Amino acid sequence: MKRIRGFASDNNAGVHPEILKSIFEANNGHAIGYGDDKYTSQATATIKELFGGSVDVYFVFNGTGANVLGINNLGQSYHSVICAETAHIQVDECGAPEKFTGMKLLSVATPDGKLTPDLIKKHLHGVGFEHHSQPGVISITQPTELGTLYTVAEIKELSELAHRLGIYLHMDGARISNAVASLNIPIKAFTKDAGVDVLSFGGTKNGMMYGEAVVFMNPGLDRNFKYFRKQGMQLASKMRYIGAQFNAFFKDGLWLKNAAHANKMAQLLYQKVINIPGVTVIQPVQANGVFAMIPGNLISKLQEEYFFYVWDEQKDEVRWMCSFDTTEDDVNEFAALLQKMVQNQ
Amino acid sequence: MKRIRGFASDNNAGVHPEILKSIFEANNGHAIGYGDDKYTSQATATIKELFGGSVDVYFVFNGTGANVLGINNLGQSYHSVICAETAHIQVDECGAPEKFTGMKLLSVATPDGKLTPDLIKKHLHGVGFEHHSQPGVISITQPTELGTLYTVAEIKELSELAHRLGIYLHMDGARISNAVASLNIPIKAFTKDAGVDVLSFGGTKNGMMYGEAVVFMNPGLDRNFKYFRKQGMQLASKMRYIGAQFNAFFKDGLWLKNAAHANKMAQLLYQKVINIPGVTVIQPVQANGVFAMIPGNLISKLQEEYFFYVWDEQKDEVRWMCSFDTTEDDVNEFAALLQKMVQNQ
Amino acid sequence: MKRIRGFASDNNAGVHPEILKSIFEANNGHAIGYGDDKYTSQATATIKELFGGSVDVYFVFNGTGANVLGINNLGQSYHSVICAETAHIQVDECGAPEKFTGMKLLSVATPDGKLTPDLIKKHLHGVGFEHHSQPGVISITQPTELGTLYTVAEIKELSELAHRLGIYLHMDGARISNAVASLNIPIKAFTKDAGVDVLSFGGTKNGMMYGEAVVFMNPGLDRNFKYFRKQGMQLASKMRYIGAQFNAFFKDGLWLKNAAHANKMAQLLYQKVINIPGVTVIQPVQANGVFAMIPGNLISKLQEEYFFYVWDEQKDEVRWMCSFDTTEDDVNEFAALLQKMVQNQ
Amino acid sequence: MKRIRGFASDNNAGVHPEILKSIFEANNGHAIGYGDDKYTSQATATIKELFGGSVDVYFVFNGTGANVLGINNLGQSYHSVICAETAHIQVDECGAPEKFTGMKLLSVATPDGKLTPDLIKKHLHGVGFEHHSQPGVISITQPTELGTLYTVAEIKELSELAHRLGIYLHMDGARISNAVASLNIPIKAFTKDAGVDVLSFGGTKNGMMYGEAVVFMNPGLDRNFKYFRKQGMQLASKMRYIGAQFNAFFKDGLWLKNAAHANKMAQLLYQKVINIPGVTVIQPVQANGVFAMIPGNLISKLQEEYFFYVWDEQKDEVRWMCSFDTTEDDVNEFAALLQKMVQNQ
Repeated sequence: MKRIRGFASDNNAGVHPEILKSIFEANNGHAIGYGDDKYTSQATATIKELFGGSVDVYFVFNGTGANVLGINNLGQSYHSVICAETAHIQVDECGAPEKFTGMKLLSVATPDGKLTPDLIKKHLHGVGFEHHSQPGVISITQPTELGTLYTVAEIKELSELAHRLGIYLHMDGARISNAVASLNIPIKAFTKDAGVDVLSFGGTKNGMMYGEAVVFMNPGLDRNFKYFRKQGMQLASKMRYIGAQFNAFFKDGLWLKNAAHANKMAQLLYQKVINIPGVTVIQPVQANGVFAMIPGNLISKLQEEYFFYVWDEQKDEVRWMCSFDTTEDDVNEFAALLQKMVQNQ
Repeated sequence: MKRIRGFASDNNAGVHPEILKSIFEANNGHAIGYGDDKYTSQATATIKELFGGSVDVYFVFNGTGANVLGINNLGQSYHSVICAETAHIQVDECGAPEKFTGMKLLSVATPDGKLTPDLIKKHLHGVGFEHHSQPGVISITQPTELGTLYTVAEIKELSELAHRLGIYLHMDGARISNAVASLNIPIKAFTKDAGVDVLSFGGTKNGMMYGEAVVFMNPGLDRNFKYFRKQGMQLASKMRYIGAQFNAFFKDGLWLKNAAHANKMAQLLYQKVINIPGVTVIQPVQANGVFAMIPGNLISKLQEEYFFYVWDEQKDEVRWMCSFDTTEDDVNEFAALLQKMVQNQ
Repeated sequence: MKRIRGFASDNNAGVHPEILKSIFEANNGHAIGYGDDKYTSQATATIKELFGGSVDVYFVFNGTGANVLGINNLGQSYHSVICAETAHIQVDECGAPEKFTGMKLLSVATPDGKLTPDLIKKHLHGVGFEHHSQPGVISITQPTELGTLYTVAEIKELSELAHRLGIYLHMDGARISNAVASLNIPIKAFTKDAGVDVLSFGGTKNGMMYGEAVVFMNPGLDRNFKYFRKQGMQLASKMRYIGAQFNAFFKDGLWLKNAAHANKMAQLLYQKVINIPGVTVIQPVQANGVFAMIPGNLISKLQEEYFFYVWDEQKDEVRWMCSFDTTEDDVNEFAALLQKMVQNQ
Repeated sequence: MKRIRGFASDNNAGVHPEILKSIFEANNGHAIGYGDDKYTSQATATIKELFGGSVDVYFVFNGTGANVLGINNLGQSYHSVICAETAHIQVDECGAPEKFTGMKLLSVATPDGKLTPDLIKKHLHGVGFEHHSQPGVISITQPTELGTLYTVAEIKELSELAHRLGIYLHMDGARISNAVASLNIPIKAFTKDAGVDVLSFGGTKNGMMYGEAVVFMNPGLDRNFKYFRKQGMQLASKMRYIGAQFNAFFKDGLWLKNAAHANKMAQLLYQKVINIPGVTVIQPVQANGVFAMIPGNLISKLQEEYFFYVWDEQKDEVRWMCSFDTTEDDVNEFAALLQKMVQNQ
C-alpha cells in the first residue's frame, strides 16, 4: 500500500512519547532482573489499586502469553474453554492455548462477538462424564474482537453461570482501556466486581511497546503462576522496562486518554462512512474498531492505498481499527478516498 | 437398570467365541514382544491385502489411541483438524487429540454427522497466516456417530478437497465393519480408493476384546509412527494377542458376519419402533445404531429397565446400538416394552 | 534365533491358564463398559484389601500408561521427576512422561538401580526459584530394572525425604509381584506403610495378557485421575476383561506363586552360570532377573540360539529374565549351552 | 543488599544508550506489525550478512524462547536433546523445552561446561529402538554457563558427530557476543562454518532491552518456524522495536565493543581476586564471567553488600558476571571489599 499510516491494527501505531520517556528514565544503571525492581513494584501496586487491592499481578510479554497463561491457571488439560468463534484465543493464536494448556476450545457463533448464557448452554453438558472434556473456563473479550462491549449486567450473568458451575470466567482485555474509556466506569466495576476471575490486561495495543499484565482477581487463583510463566517462555529478564511502561501508562490517566481518543476516532470514522452508499457498518461502534461491509470490488483498490484486514472475504466485511495516534486528518482522508472510490466505480 | 443385555453400546457386548478361541490358541509358550511375532505378522498381512498391499499397519490398544496417533502423523501442532461436532474425537475423547497433538479441533454442525465440502469451507481460511492454526486434517467417521454412512462419492469429494489443499483425510473407522457390511463393497473402495489417507480400523466394537489398527494408505505417511505409538502409551508388549484376535476377526469373514448381524438387528429395531406413537427415528438407519426421539417422560423409565445413552437431553433424543450378539428376542422385548410404556403413559 | 523360549523378557511369556480361564468365564453376555462391571469391582476390592482398604485403584492398559498417569497426578508440568538413570521411565518409555506430563526427568547414576537420599540430593535444589523445574516426584522401581530390591527401611528413608520436602514418592511396580515373593512380606509393608504415594501395580509381566493398576495410597491423590486416564488414551472400553484377569491373578495367591517361581528360576540360573569361567554376575539376584558380564565374542553367538537383550554393549553386560513359565529345563539347557560355548571358544 | 550495581548477571545492566536511541528513532508513526517493517528487515539482513547470506533469521522475545523454538525445529517429540548438566535449557528454563517440544533432555556432567564426543557417547544408543527416546539434538552453549569457550575444532568435532548420526547441533548463544569478542574470529567461523545448525543469538545480555534471534544455518531447517513461533507465544506485534535494537547493536560494532568490555572487566576481576587468600578461581575466565570458590562464611556477608548468585552451595562456589557497563571502579571496589572481608574474618 502507498501509505504507512492506516487502520489495519492498533498495534501498527508506535509507542506513546510519555511511555518512551519512562523507559529512558528507568535506564539508569543496574536493577535486579525478573521483576524484583522498583518499576515493576510500582506498576504492580498501581494495578492492584485499580482493583481494590486484593489481586495478584504478573507481567508477560504479549497478549497471547497473557491469555494462555491466565487460562492455564484456571483448569487442567482435560477442561474445555468456551469462547466466541471470533475470539482471539480461537482464531488468532495459532493453537497456542491448546498446545500449552492441553485444553479443548469450544467456540460458539455469536451475532456480535458476545457470549450469552444461552449461547454457551450447549457446551455445558457431560459434567462428570470422563469421555468428555469438562467445562472449565468461559472466556470473553472486552471489548470484543468485533468492537462491541459487554455491559456489567451481561458479564455478571456469565460469571454467575460460571461460578454456579464451579468454573471460571476469563476476560481477554487486550483492549481493556478502550472498554473503560467507553463504558466510563471504573475498570473494577466490570471485571472484579462483575465476577471476572482472571483478566489479560493489555498494554501494547494502547501505546506501549510490549508488555501485558495477567490479573488474578481472587487469592489463590495465581497458584504456581510464576513457574508456568517461566515454563511458558513469558518471563522477561529486564522486567523493569515493562514496569516503567505501565507506570507512564497509568500516570495522569494516559491509558484512558489514549483509549478515549482512539474510541473517538472510531466514532468519527463511523460518522464519515455511514452515509457512503454501499457502505454498511455491521456492528455497533462501541470501542476503537469499525466493522463494515463495502463494495467487494473496492476492497483491493482501497488496500492499495491503505493496509487493513478483510474480516470476512465471503461477505466483503472489513475491519478498520483506530489507535491512540490516529488523527482526524487520517480519518477524513481515508473516508474521503473511500467516498471517491464509491462514486467513481 | 434391571437387565444386563441392552442397547447402550456395541462395546457392552462381549468377545466373539471364535476370537476368544484364537487367543487361546496363541497362548502356546513364548513369543517376542511388541509385535515381532507370527500372529501380528499374519494380521498385518491380512489387512494389507484388504487394501491392495501397499499400506502400513500398526496395532494399538483402543480407538482413541488409533484416532489420536493416526491424526498426529498427518500434521504438526500448529495445524487444525476439521470434524463434525458429533465426532468422537471432538466429544468423546476428553481432549486427547489436543493434548497429544497440540492441534486445534474445529467442529461444524451437521444434520446427519457427515461433513461436506460446503460445511467445512468456513474453516479453510487463513492459509499461510501465522496467527491462524493452519488447516491440516479433515476427519470423518464411517459410519458416523449418528449411524449414517458416507457414499464413496461423498468421501472422494472430501479427499479431493483435502488433497487440493495439500492436507489429509482421516477416517475414524471404529465401526468400519458395519460400514463395509452395509455398503456391501470392498473396504478399499471407500477408503484407500476414495482418497482416505489414514484409517482407524476398529475391532473392539465388533466382537474383539481390545485392539484397533491404524492403517496408513500411502507410503511415508507412517513416518516415525512407531516412536509416537510408544510415546503415546499405545504399544502393547504381548502384542500377539491383538494379532490373534484380528486373525479370527478376518477368518471366514467373521468381521462382516458380525457387522451384518448388528446392522440387521438395528433395522429390525427400526421397524419395530417406527410405528410406535411418539417415537420418531431421526436419522437414517444405515449401520448398527438407531437414533430416536421418544416421549421425554419415558426416557428415565425405560432406562430403569435398560441401560442406554441419552444423545441430546434437550431434544429427548436417545441412541440405541446393536451389536454382533444382539438377538431378535432382545429387540422384540425392548420394542414391546417401549410400546407398552407409550400406551400406558 | 533358533529357539522361541528364552530369557529376553518376562513379557515374552504367554498368559497363565488360570487367567485365560477367567477371561473365558467373564465372556458371558453384556456388561457396562469402562469399568462399571462386577469383574472390575471385584478386582478393585481385592487390591484395596491388599492395602488395608483406603486406597484408590484404577486400571490401565500397560506399564508406561500406569507410570505416566500415576506420576502426572503427583505434580504439575513445572515439576521434576527424580529417578535412577536405569529407570524404565527414563530409558524405556520413549519420552512418554515428558510428553504427557511436561515434567523434567532428572536421572542419577546408581551402582545397583537404587536411589538413595544421598544420590538424589544434587537434584533437590532451587526450591522456589522459578527458573528451575521444582522437585516434585521421586520415582523408584521395585524390584529395580537391575533385578535388585529396596528394603523397607530404604524405601522409608526416601519417602520421609520426599514428604519432608512436600513432594511425592512413586513406585514403578511393573514386577511388584516378584518383590513381594522375594521379600516375603505383605505388599502393604513396603508400599503404603513405607510411605509410597502411588504404585504402578504390574500384571502383564507376571502372567496377564494386558492390564496394570494404578494405586493411589492416600485419599485425594487420585483427584481427577479418571479424566487424565481417558485423555491419556488408557481407558479400556471392555474393562471387565482386565478385571477378570486380576481376579484370577489374585485367586489362591496365583500372583505370588508365579512370581516365586520366576524368582526361583533366576536363582537357579544364577547358580548355574556363576561358576562358568568368564561369566560374572554383576548384580545381586533378588528377583527374576540375572545381570551378567560374559565374554564379548559369545554374545552374538548365544543370541543366535536365544533371544535376550544386551544391557550395556560397551561392558558386555547382558540381561536374562525368568518368567512364570520358565522351566528348570529351560535354565539347564541355556546354562549348558553357555558353558559349552565358553569351553569351545 | 546495599548496592544496586553488582555482579549478579549481565541482565541486571540496563540498555545501552545507542540502542535506546535507535528505539527512539524507530518510533515515528505507523509500521506494519509482526515483522513486516524496515527495521526488522534491516536487522535480518545484517544478521544474514554475518553468516554469509544463506541463513534464515527470526526474532523472538527472550533466550528461553529462542532455545526452545530453535530446538523444536530440529526434531520431533520422541527425540532427545543432549546437553551439559549446567546448560541453561537443563537448569534455568523451568522445563520449557520438555513442555513445548515434548523431547527428553539428557544431561552429562562436564568439568567445564563443555560437551565432548566422548562425554555424550553414552546417550547415543538405542537408535531405531522404539522404547528409547531417539537422539535428535546436541545442544551446546557458547560461551558456556561456566564462562568457558569451545574452540572451533571442538565445535567441529561435535557437529561432525551429530551429522554423522543424522542429528543436529544447536548452539545457545545467549552471550554469543562475548564469544566473538574473546575468540576474535568472525562469528561465522565457529557457528555456520563449524557445523552449527541453529543458533540462539542473544541480545538482551549484551545491552539490549529484550529480543533475541534464532538463526537457522541451512535452508529448510526453519520449516514452519513462523507457526511454531506464534504458537510458542514468541511473536512480537510491534516487532520493529526489536529490529531497531539489533540495528544499533550491530552498528559500528557496538555488540563487540560491549562484549569486549565485559570480557575485559571479567579479566580485571579475575586478576584482582586471584591472589586473595582463600579465593580460588575454578574455571578459565574466557568470557565475561568469573567462577570462584570463596570462604563459605563470607558468602552471605558479601551478599549483604552485593547481589550475586551462589553457583554450588555445597562447594561454596559463586558466580560473578560482568556486563557492558561494568566499570573498573565497580571491580576494584568489589575486589577490595572481598579482600578486606577475608583479612578480617
